[in-house]
Amino acid sequence: MTWMIDGVELQSRLLSGSGKFGSASLMRAALEASGTEIVTLALKRIEHDMQSDDMLSATADLPLHLLPNTSGAKDAKEAIFAAQLGRELLQTNWVKLEIHPDPRHLLPDPVETLLAAEQLVKQGFTVLPYCHADPVLCKRLQEVGCAAVMPLGSPIGSNQGLQTRDFLQIIIEQASVPVIVDAGIGAPSHAAEAMELGADAVLVNTAIASSGNPVVMARAFAQAVSAGRQAFEAGLAGRHNGASASSPLTAFLE
Amino acid sequence: MTWMIDGVELQSRLLSGSGKFGSASLMRAALEASGTEIVTLALKRIEHDMQSDDMLSATADLPLHLLPNTSGAKDAKEAIFAAQLGRELLQTNWVKLEIHPDPRHLLPDPVETLLAAEQLVKQGFTVLPYCHADPVLCKRLQEVGCAAVMPLGSPIGSNQGLQTRDFLQIIIEQASVPVIVDAGIGAPSHAAEAMELGADAVLVNTAIASSGNPVVMARAFAQAVSAGRQAFEAGLAGRHNGASASSPLTAFLE
Amino acid sequence: MTWMIDGVELQSRLLSGSGKFGSASLMRAALEASGTEIVTLALKRIEHDMQSDDMLSATADLPLHLLPNTSGAKDAKEAIFAAQLGRELLQTNWVKLEIHPDPRHLLPDPVETLLAAEQLVKQGFTVLPYCHADPVLCKRLQEVGCAAVMPLGSPIGSNQGLQTRDFLQIIIEQASVPVIVDAGIGAPSHAAEAMELGADAVLVNTAIASSGNPVVMARAFAQAVSAGRQAFEAGLAGRHNGASASSPLTAFLE
Amino acid sequence: MTWMIDGVELQSRLLSGSGKFGSASLMRAALEASGTEIVTLALKRIEHDMQSDDMLSATADLPLHLLPNTSGAKDAKEAIFAAQLGRELLQTNWVKLEIHPDPRHLLPDPVETLLAAEQLVKQGFTVLPYCHADPVLCKRLQEVGCAAVMPLGSPIGSNQGLQTRDFLQIIIEQASVPVIVDAGIGAPSHAAEAMELGADAVLVNTAIASSGNPVVMARAFAQAVSAGRQAFEAGLAGRHNGASASSPLTAFLE
Repeated sequence: MTWMIDGVELQSRLLSGSGKFGSASLMRAALEASGTEIVTLALKRIEHDMQSDDMLSATADLPLHLLPNTSGAKDAKEAIFAAQLGRELLQTNWVKLEIHPDPRHLLPDPVETLLAAEQLVKQGFTVLPYCHADPVLCKRLQEVGCAAVMPLGSPIGSNQGLQTRDFLQIIIEQASVPVIVDAGIGAPSHAAEAMELGADAVLVNTAIASSGNPVVMARAFAQAVSAGRQAFEAGLAGRHNGASASSPLTAFLE
Repeated sequence: MTWMIDGVELQSRLLSGSGKFGSASLMRAALEASGTEIVTLALKRIEHDMQSDDMLSATADLPLHLLPNTSGAKDAKEAIFAAQLGRELLQTNWVKLEIHPDPRHLLPDPVETLLAAEQLVKQGFTVLPYCHADPVLCKRLQEVGCAAVMPLGSPIGSNQGLQTRDFLQIIIEQASVPVIVDAGIGAPSHAAEAMELGADAVLVNTAIASSGNPVVMARAFAQAVSAGRQAFEAGLAGRHNGASASSPLTAFLE
Repeated sequence: MTWMIDGVELQSRLLSGSGKFGSASLMRAALEASGTEIVTLALKRIEHDMQSDDMLSATADLPLHLLPNTSGAKDAKEAIFAAQLGRELLQTNWVKLEIHPDPRHLLPDPVETLLAAEQLVKQGFTVLPYCHADPVLCKRLQEVGCAAVMPLGSPIGSNQGLQTRDFLQIIIEQASVPVIVDAGIGAPSHAAEAMELGADAVLVNTAIASSGNPVVMARAFAQAVSAGRQAFEAGLAGRHNGASASSPLTAFLE
Repeated sequence: MTWMIDGVELQSRLLSGSGKFGSASLMRAALEASGTEIVTLALKRIEHDMQSDDMLSATADLPLHLLPNTSGAKDAKEAIFAAQLGRELLQTNWVKLEIHPDPRHLLPDPVETLLAAEQLVKQGFTVLPYCHADPVLCKRLQEVGCAAVMPLGSPIGSNQGLQTRDFLQIIIEQASVPVIVDAGIGAPSHAAEAMELGADAVLVNTAIASSGNPVVMARAFAQAVSAGRQAFEAGLAGRHNGASASSPLTAFLE
């Protein structure tokens, strides 16, 4: 039931973000409730003054793997620079590679992402790229040595769920590295659906942090991820069009 | 967090069926794993020889409310007769009213269902009618005194999930009795989605009983129902079209 | 390629409404562009002073079958009264039976609709009932002698298309009278989809009348209905999950 | 109402393929019925013996722009070679760039496609690349000088329609070159939907060629494309959740 990234064994299949929480203490409480073992954070938030960083100090004693992300990078060069910065500041080789030249939809650039991934792998990073749900691109990212792929369900922060469901299915079938569905997961049912498809994990940020009650919502996502994974392992019955009686139908009044 | 039917307080929001299991012991194990407190069973299966009924003997010591159903009834008259039979045999006033003249799609008859519901309420039954996701019908069933309404997500046994989602939403908004989504729930994500909409409970049978591992699947559904309910209570963030960054976007390289 | 209602042969499979147009002349132009042969109108609009009714005078010379509707009726009694009124005023036995007790969602009442339909048939009306996409109800409406059934795609005026698609499919399979999809058709693609499923016709009002250019939109709907019908008759290829090359794939460079 | 590719004015917004038809004469009849002005054909089919090529001889007198495609190419190098071959054989600078390394799902490679597009533009080709519905990629293809972009609706030959609808919407908003939706369009309603979104054109092959009656189906698609375009130009009313009466609701019986 466990899974691995870069040789690290993990219990939780729910990755969390650290943005948008009302306060550092609320973030800490939600992260604890979520059971997450990997939390992503934007490099820009920590670079200026690490000592004062609320996020880091609030969670320093939790058993978390920090996953710095390159959010804000517009091309491979900026992302590589950010990744190097993150490695120095946080003492980790892990990096979530995000390159989105488009400030409105925050959609990732496939070409720059592949280019940066290849370079970063060569520089010894454990690279987890955020990317479109493009099966060919995911395969290439895997081939250049990425430790996982992180295809999107729908645009970041849109809460629209798995609009890319059929492409995620193909990505999962082809993958030899973990598939972590990122972006667009707005409800526990979306997270469960991704796990039922066979995804290895999901990353959730907005839907927890922006909820009316982030701690309860974090717990709800943790349960949904567990539910979806168990369903995948137990084997879901297929969908079909006709009805099929749960109860025998022979007329009981004869 | 609890809910009630007919003055009975319930913890679990997952109702189970008793059909299609490979054996009585498997059914028992799945029911225990599901945490369900209400299990429905077809009257025809028990009428001939109650002593030998595997289902009843296998679960006699579990803390379950039995909910006999009138599956197989083709009109109000047959359903009323079956309900009366169930009351005598199982010593319960509760009845899940199912009237489906159509053996292929097993879809419920709105007119006969309303007619039978009205009569059964007058005869002192606690009536839970299975019905189309028709908001006007659900309101009328409520008005004649039904203890809950059980609108369908999609055809029985189809595992297609909440095809009637927008109509369920209206039903839930209008209801003053519990809304239990019945039929079509084929995966934990579907159950979570129903709860996120604000349904009070779901009934699942085929998806658990026909799974490769009914015990694990039962547990998965229990978690998904709990997850969906908590998300509803915590307050889901809305869906929208544009993207919205989880992480600040100010260029960090300036 | 023609179809029939009550022995009347019809070329056009697009029925139109007469509400919500900016002016009577715009309505007339849109009706002409649509090619429609049946136009529905609310009885309440004409009752007070028929002579002055813009709608009727504007279209008096067009070859249209008027289909008075009972919109606004809250139960069978009101609907029957309205139908009788319509017969007197408009000299037609045709009536679109609409009973919606709920002023917010305007969803039809299945029980009152069946009751009124039965009575109106006995009184010699040609009854076209608006109803939920409930296959059992549609069958019963057909059995009491309705000339067609008019199941909804989604709530009136919502423009959400065929949310009830799978139930419409069952209704069409079972029907021995024409199936006219009513309500929710917000775009030509929705109308085409209904026809591709095998519906006999569609009724469109809001999407044409509220368009920026009702005349062009009416023409668009007419083409889409024709396209969908031809596709149904020619036979659509099935959907499937794997890809399938349109062009041969043998490597051409060897 | 016309549109342009590379300075060529076009009336028809339906592009056709030439594969999968039962015979050359059937293909010719379907192409005529479709009104298409651009027909794509696989280079490999013509290279060995152009004289005997049925497709070309059957349509030589029709007013068609031939659009050779590089289907079968696995990388940029193969695609460029194929494009050059096509230019020589067919005396056209136009090329539909298709690079799909994956023989099962036939999904396009974003990196090789961008690479090849850039080269081919430099070599004077008018490049129309087939690509994933990836807004960032489409923008980059446009920036290197492609004459149009051809994002997919769903996998080639799957007939599943616009699974990528929300991403197509973004692509269309951003595009300064024509957007032609390619792949997955399995019914006239899908084609109409693409046009309603604002796509400039669609390419259809399998759904016409594999239909029970390709000629009728070709005509149906032509009408649907026209319907969808007119609806886009007239302005579709928005979708919303509540109902909205087409007819006035004031009780008429008072």
